[in-house]
Amino acid sequence: MKIEPLKVEKGIRVSELVEKFSYTALNARRLGESGKIWKEMVKEDAFIFLTLAGAMIPAGMRDIIKDLLENRFAHSLVLTGANVVHEVCEALGFPHLSGSPLANDVELANKGVSRIYDVFMETPAFEGVERFFMETFKELSGVFSSYEILWEIGKRLQNSFLSLAFENKIPVFCPTLHDSIAGLHLMLYGKNAVLNYSKDAKMLLDLCSQKRKMGIVIIGGGVPKNFALQAMLLAEGFDYAIQITTDTPQYGGLSGATLEEAKSWCKLKGDAKAVTVYCDATIALPLLYAYLID
Amino acid sequence: MKIEPLKVEKGIRVSELVEKFSYTALNARRLGESGKIWKEMVKEDAFIFLTLAGAMIPAGMRDIIKDLLENRFAHSLVLTGANVVHEVCEALGFPHLSGSPLANDVELANKGVSRIYDVFMETPAFEGVERFFMETFKELSGVFSSYEILWEIGKRLQNSFLSLAFENKIPVFCPTLHDSIAGLHLMLYGKNAVLNYSKDAKMLLDLCSQKRKMGIVIIGGGVPKNFALQAMLLAEGFDYAIQITTDTPQYGGLSGATLEEAKSWCKLKGDAKAVTVYCDATIALPLLYAYLID
Amino acid sequence: MKIEPLKVEKGIRVSELVEKFSYTALNARRLGESGKIWKEMVKEDAFIFLTLAGAMIPAGMRDIIKDLLENRFAHSLVLTGANVVHEVCEALGFPHLSGSPLANDVELANKGVSRIYDVFMETPAFEGVERFFMETFKELSGVFSSYEILWEIGKRLQNSFLSLAFENKIPVFCPTLHDSIAGLHLMLYGKNAVLNYSKDAKMLLDLCSQKRKMGIVIIGGGVPKNFALQAMLLAEGFDYAIQITTDTPQYGGLSGATLEEAKSWCKLKGDAKAVTVYCDATIALPLLYAYLID
Amino acid sequence: MKIEPLKVEKGIRVSELVEKFSYTALNARRLGESGKIWKEMVKEDAFIFLTLAGAMIPAGMRDIIKDLLENRFAHSLVLTGANVVHEVCEALGFPHLSGSPLANDVELANKGVSRIYDVFMETPAFEGVERFFMETFKELSGVFSSYEILWEIGKRLQNSFLSLAFENKIPVFCPTLHDSIAGLHLMLYGKNAVLNYSKDAKMLLDLCSQKRKMGIVIIGGGVPKNFALQAMLLAEGFDYAIQITTDTPQYGGLSGATLEEAKSWCKLKGDAKAVTVYCDATIALPLLYAYLID
Repeated sequence: MKIEPLKVEKGIRVSELVEKFSYTALNARRLGESGKIWKEMVKEDAFIFLTLAGAMIPAGMRDIIKDLLENRFAHSLVLTGANVVHEVCEALGFPHLSGSPLANDVELANKGVSRIYDVFMETPAFEGVERFFMETFKELSGVFSSYEILWEIGKRLQNSFLSLAFENKIPVFCPTLHDSIAGLHLMLYGKNAVLNYSKDAKMLLDLCSQKRKMGIVIIGGGVPKNFALQAMLLAEGFDYAIQITTDTPQYGGLSGATLEEAKSWCKLKGDAKAVTVYCDATIALPLLYAYLID
Repeated sequence: MKIEPLKVEKGIRVSELVEKFSYTALNARRLGESGKIWKEMVKEDAFIFLTLAGAMIPAGMRDIIKDLLENRFAHSLVLTGANVVHEVCEALGFPHLSGSPLANDVELANKGVSRIYDVFMETPAFEGVERFFMETFKELSGVFSSYEILWEIGKRLQNSFLSLAFENKIPVFCPTLHDSIAGLHLMLYGKNAVLNYSKDAKMLLDLCSQKRKMGIVIIGGGVPKNFALQAMLLAEGFDYAIQITTDTPQYGGLSGATLEEAKSWCKLKGDAKAVTVYCDATIALPLLYAYLID
Repeated sequence: MKIEPLKVEKGIRVSELVEKFSYTALNARRLGESGKIWKEMVKEDAFIFLTLAGAMIPAGMRDIIKDLLENRFAHSLVLTGANVVHEVCEALGFPHLSGSPLANDVELANKGVSRIYDVFMETPAFEGVERFFMETFKELSGVFSSYEILWEIGKRLQNSFLSLAFENKIPVFCPTLHDSIAGLHLMLYGKNAVLNYSKDAKMLLDLCSQKRKMGIVIIGGGVPKNFALQAMLLAEGFDYAIQITTDTPQYGGLSGATLEEAKSWCKLKGDAKAVTVYCDATIALPLLYAYLID
Repeated sequence: MKIEPLKVEKGIRVSELVEKFSYTALNARRLGESGKIWKEMVKEDAFIFLTLAGAMIPAGMRDIIKDLLENRFAHSLVLTGANVVHEVCEALGFPHLSGSPLANDVELANKGVSRIYDVFMETPAFEGVERFFMETFKELSGVFSSYEILWEIGKRLQNSFLSLAFENKIPVFCPTLHDSIAGLHLMLYGKNAVLNYSKDAKMLLDLCSQKRKMGIVIIGGGVPKNFALQAMLLAEGFDYAIQITTDTPQYGGLSGATLEEAKSWCKLKGDAKAVTVYCDATIALPLLYAYLID
């Protein structure tokens, strides 16, 4: 197929550009193709997992996540504990701040500022989050999966993808909840609450075993990627897969592992439609969302 | 400054999204900031160099380059020999083809297909390019800078940034012209033509010594980056700089070197406005162009 | 300080080369410096965590891990579930095989071969591992931390860092045990065993609160990195830190986050000795071990 | 083939470790395999090109380069202009200094310090180099290839791979000489000297057309990589190729292009023995040299 030189007109919409990307090459093409695959997933009524690692919430992507769930472009979310903590922070009204990645970190520490690359977070935010978790976790009693804990959190928030998940009983898994500030607070304050991931695994297996097309959109690798892919070892494999990452396969880590490799494990079906986009997800994900809503 | 969670509405235009990116973080923010810096360059009537390395023309970016020059968003171009060859190829009507990076390269060789990651180029294209270069270079006589050779090439083409450069006497430098198929053909067929880069260096120094603001947009590093930055060792340094790359500084190569580092060499002024976007330029450059025309 | 051109003599020992690396630049220097910091940690009787992510065991690094623990160059290990599974596999006598990263993954799947970049693993290995886990987990009853589960596993193995850990009661944490084949089998066969990470967190906090110098060697990021660093939010911060990774900070992910950034969180002390080596750990770690034993 | 867990004994020599690496996986394996291929090249009396990009000389690798040429582990060198400049600097007794990549670059500029990642270079070094080039280039008259200019430079130095090249008439190509401080000085002071790369291209083609096995060792990509590979478009292709790089293919740039891709262009023979090592060359190259001399 011929590569078509990209022509950009004044006033071009994002969705038009993403469409045009699919006739170019390199990662623009991959981005365009991922848009088409995601659209097909939606059209074919596939059940879609969205997995999320990296500093996506601190970087300002929380509304995109919420809108993806609200528009049913994803039906389940798997994310890291850090993203949960930062989402709670935002939902409570403690904003993240823009900062320099070249700042002196010892000085930042002295001023009570914690840095995530070019994002700053101040002490009051941590205190607010701790208060929220303390109050929330004190009220909990029993054995909880991570998605149940997140529903409990969502119940107490507004204007968050976590509150949306609670209201619509969307399963949001956090397989590293214990490895986060939320997890520390759960341990300190949730004396009567036990976190047990077996319940997560069971729910996940049920979702993976549905009699419909299955799709996955992987943002940035990590445990969320492995958690969702691995469940397919006990099911039939994904029909569709999109991966947005800046990790490459040459060093053998899971985050950079190709979707082709996942086929050898039968985590993807042999004929699955799959594409990896090598791009910072803060750029690629909003482009894809804009493509999908149009 | 507060990071503002990104809100994407139905029908959003690219320029609106790039504007919004500048209030987020990570590379979306960098992309948004680079848009603002480029806009300021244009507004302040800076003289703008655009340097181009990597497989940008094979990947379908030729019209973006032409439109950037045509709209005076860049006033001079520095590019690799390979991009010249592939531009001639396109302008002559030999398209690049979309292919798989997983193809068997020995089989491709047997079929006369050369691969550039996911771009295929077939034997007739190479033959057409050779014919064109043979005819062009046979007619040349004397000592030529690279920009003069490119004007001679542009004179014989249509609908190309090279023909545009010829018509408008835009200086397009190719400091690695000899290290390309064009260079091989120049050596084989241009018996009366001598390529001498001293003339390029002089023109470049003249351009760098203008009494106006100076700006540079670096796509992908390599010799084009060094060539344009280095001229500033003999002038006053750039006022504005944008770099779009996927190379990182940790391995010490020039392509990944930061714009901060360039300040230690006085290639950039100490107070230059500068930002690096870590992103495949096939994605970032069209976004920036769309932002600029709006 | 002057950079000393590296002189390599016939028969040079690894330890000599690593020493010399510390007078060069770029990542050779970083590697040399990390050797010196690690040596100082040992000399100062620091308590040393080693965290392990990436396909290190499949890639043949199991004896290095064992020898590091045996020689007291590390006193606690934090690793991913996948590395546990592959270690059990090796200890049971099922070797990993060398393969091509260009292999056809659908054909591999049909032959029962699972691929990890250039490492192949065959069906009998998975069956052997499943049998072992089934028998092990059936016998367990009660609430277990991950380190207790790993001791139970180690008790039933020989010639493994896991058996060494059992024998010497070395705390080996696996904060993603549930997100692995081991975790799936624990859920399926360990009906009377409950995995609870609170116990891990408590043990970890105790270890982090010792009245001695604290050090950490981070291989490849991921949850193991976060798990160990995060505990320091409730303690005084590490005095020494070494990070070996191929991830870079520019995309905002935790695995690529700098050790400087960790200082803003007080996970490292402000005056901690810290260095990151950007290198595949299959190369860097054996070099460092050879340096340490000499 | 079975992966053999790596066993490192006290006092292990570098050559033993590199040998053992070849039975592991990931980049340790690639490094071990590259050692075997290089050894075979030498044993089969192949003509070996060594191409050099990146800040290798500033980083302290000049003696390794000299020793590789002196021991006939390479028979021709292709390098960047920057590496020439820094080699002259070292040979004249102006050392490079170790510095912090986090230094304030504007302050460095004010102190007359230029930074290359973690290497500092001070004003007197630049002045000394300029004096040397001025004196050298004033004496030159006629048309010169880059390798002849480098011989002229080498004639005036001692204890340098450039003096060794002069004495032994080893062809050292610098296809970006004009794009360096040396090139600027040649233009300013070498009024009677003309640099013409056609002569380089002819010599290179002669070398590539020898009736013996042909090999190439690529350090870091860039123009040196392309220059040497491209000559094979007019010859029969390399029989052996080793590439040491930290660039990956996913972004389409030449530096990261695979050796497989080079087969589609017939730059490598279809059955060439070829391996890429993804590793900082400041680490990998000394390891390989130590392996070769043992």
